[in-house]
Amino acid sequence: MEKKIITISREFGSGGRTIGHQVAEALGIPFYDKELVEHIALESGFAPEYVEEHSEHSPGKSIFSYAFASHGHPGVMNGLSTADFLWNVQCNVILQIAEKGPCVIVGRNADYVLKDRPDVLHAFICADKEARAERIVRLYGESEKTPKARLNEKDKRRKVNCQHYTGRTWGQSQNYDICLNSSVLGIETCTDILVKLMKGEK
Amino acid sequence: MEKKIITISREFGSGGRTIGHQVAEALGIPFYDKELVEHIALESGFAPEYVEEHSEHSPGKSIFSYAFASHGHPGVMNGLSTADFLWNVQCNVILQIAEKGPCVIVGRNADYVLKDRPDVLHAFICADKEARAERIVRLYGESEKTPKARLNEKDKRRKVNCQHYTGRTWGQSQNYDICLNSSVLGIETCTDILVKLMKGEK
Repeated sequence: MEKKIITISREFGSGGRTIGHQVAEALGIPFYDKELVEHIALESGFAPEYVEEHSEHSPGKSIFSYAFASHGHPGVMNGLSTADFLWNVQCNVILQIAEKGPCVIVGRNADYVLKDRPDVLHAFICADKEARAERIVRLYGESEKTPKARLNEKDKRRKVNCQHYTGRTWGQSQNYDICLNSSVLGIETCTDILVKLMKGEK
Repeated sequence: MEKKIITISREFGSGGRTIGHQVAEALGIPFYDKELVEHIALESGFAPEYVEEHSEHSPGKSIFSYAFASHGHPGVMNGLSTADFLWNVQCNVILQIAEKGPCVIVGRNADYVLKDRPDVLHAFICADKEARAERIVRLYGESEKTPKARLNEKDKRRKVNCQHYTGRTWGQSQNYDICLNSSVLGIETCTDILVKLMKGEK
């Protein structure tokens, strides 16, 4: 089955976003990462910054997320927590985007949302912790927390979010068609492998 | 860093052995699967059939494995269970083989045993359950158990063995450099990707 869409799940700092962008450019197809956030924001009524912060993180932890939700969106959220409401909107947006045609979608459990479409290739990008720590400091600068603490926090949040909404173990190879370690193989090589697979080239 | 050795961990029925064999042929380097069993048998004094059956399975479950072990190999096993003794021999054999030069090694936690060598590429091959079930019946014939029961049993044994001796989660993508789903990508494509990576080709 020819693949038209590629989902890229990734560890924070692994270069998965860059690889996704390069693949989209090489194939001449749309790339959804922040663009997805904007779509979800538009559909949900939440600010893009709020969606960005919450759409891949742990599900609502307290009763306040319900209170805030129902206050902000009376009658729309049907008693769902903010996180569950965002998850529903996110699923719909991803399904709609996939209907439009070939594209690259980064993160947000798109692999799970599109699991029933045979024309989707599911990739996971990981990298060694040292390389990821170096990369996030280089790209996003220093912060109060150590790079390793930042990685651990993001990893944990994505893992919990994935487990909660998909029942899957984040990064378990059997959930993807291909998993690549970008710090061992190199970002360019990862891009090349995915582009060739999408093109059906040997 | 150029890679000289490739370890291939695999789900039962995924075609990982076939891929490993094809990669070794394409690169003109030795292939160790059953050959590894023979080396371990020779070093341990156990029959190849016994090693084959136990070297990737659960660690010793009962006191009898100790009793049998010390009876069969007085003074050699130093109170180790058969499984632990076999694990030690297996590690030594894999380390010795890697010292000899380029090769492909299938299974037996070779990825973990050779984790400190930067010249080793670590691959994991998985496949959808339906494809694996079809493959094991085609290659190994029917048995009293259903194909799915046979897959579940082997998967569980390898998982427990991996967890026990390496502390790692079997099939977790972060433990490998590349993971490929052979039923989605095709066995030939998996071989091509690995051969090109080993050759350093684009």
